[in-house]
Amino acid sequence: MSEIKEIIEELLTFRNERDWEQFHNPKDLALALNVEAGELLEVFLWKKPEEANFEKVKEELADVFAFAFLMAEKYDLDVKTIVLDKIKKNAEKYPVNKAKGSAKKYNEL
Amino acid sequence: MSEIKEIIEELLTFRNERDWEQFHNPKDLALALNVEAGELLEVFLWKKPEEANFEKVKEELADVFAFAFLMAEKYDLDVKTIVLDKIKKNAEKYPVNKAKGSAKKYNEL
Amino acid sequence: MSEIKEIIEELLTFRNERDWEQFHNPKDLALALNVEAGELLEVFLWKKPEEANFEKVKEELADVFAFAFLMAEKYDLDVKTIVLDKIKKNAEKYPVNKAKGSAKKYNEL
Amino acid sequence: MSEIKEIIEELLTFRNERDWEQFHNPKDLALALNVEAGELLEVFLWKKPEEANFEKVKEELADVFAFAFLMAEKYDLDVKTIVLDKIKKNAEKYPVNKAKGSAKKYNEL
Repeated sequence: MSEIKEIIEELLTFRNERDWEQFHNPKDLALALNVEAGELLEVFLWKKPEEANFEKVKEELADVFAFAFLMAEKYDLDVKTIVLDKIKKNAEKYPVNKAKGSAKKYNEL
Repeated sequence: MSEIKEIIEELLTFRNERDWEQFHNPKDLALALNVEAGELLEVFLWKKPEEANFEKVKEELADVFAFAFLMAEKYDLDVKTIVLDKIKKNAEKYPVNKAKGSAKKYNEL
Repeated sequence: MSEIKEIIEELLTFRNERDWEQFHNPKDLALALNVEAGELLEVFLWKKPEEANFEKVKEELADVFAFAFLMAEKYDLDVKTIVLDKIKKNAEKYPVNKAKGSAKKYNEL
Repeated sequence: MSEIKEIIEELLTFRNERDWEQFHNPKDLALALNVEAGELLEVFLWKKPEEANFEKVKEELADVFAFAFLMAEKYDLDVKTIVLDKIKKNAEKYPVNKAKGSAKKYNEL
């Protein structure tokens, strides 16, 4: 089994033991992902990038991944495929010769 | 190479070709993750869970994963390890006998 | 003094007594606003709209307002002016005859 | 009429002309607030605090305020009251002698 499938299996086991599938519709999963992303952001609040607490980053990032994987599973999406497809799309929006060294958004390049 | 390492390699190649590492400090990666989580949330706005546009979910979820993987790479974190560790921690906060079928937060159980 | 100016005065007094202006650059204020918006969102997580805890909504919404007002003050923006200007702009993007009864985004109308 | 009531009246007029009240349940308003907070955050992404585009800050902050005011209206909350109440609560969590000059969270002071 692939590494990602293994992770998702563990998440589903945890969820199903608690009978939580009933709450995990995709809209609430998107909410949960935002809540966790906000908690990860809080670790950096009022701080320089290098001052964030490492243990907290680890935990909050894990929560973000958990809901992202559950969302992928809900839509039966293969994580590697969708990320690689998006990289290809972004390569068109951000061609190297225009985007190199620039933090501008594609519609401002 | 593991699947996740492969995805991260592709993300780093895309980034380095554009000389974007200079922008990718962990604080801005956390910002980017929140921006993308917000765009994923927008796909569900004013809609029933099942009405979200599938193509958009796919693309926005891919963006969320991209920044989550880049964040993991930045801190040299193994995604499987941190998610499985978090599941263990959550299993203590949400014991099956208390949490089963309940959407309550651990501090309200 | 207008109501909004009064609120902002109270927020500044609270902040300055604690010597927190040094942390309140606009980027971190935007982070703080997102963190608080995420906490407000959490009150609705896994719930029907009407099931959210009223006391929590009140507190989290207050936090959102606090950072939104501090952001307005930081840029010397008049809240009434910017909201009314935005309503005008949105009225062009969402003309009544096209937008009536529709939850579509302006670029899909 | 107070300034805030005036703003809310304008928002309601805009909404009701488009028959959008049907979409504005409090959960989706909280979603919308997060989406807009994310768009405001994006204005600061990969940038120093002072590099954010002022016009964009103005527009995105206006959107944040719009949904925050609509949320307050939905719950019949007086904005000044809830913010001042929250300042009082925060003054207890962050006493001046402990919190002065510190960016720590109250549970770490």
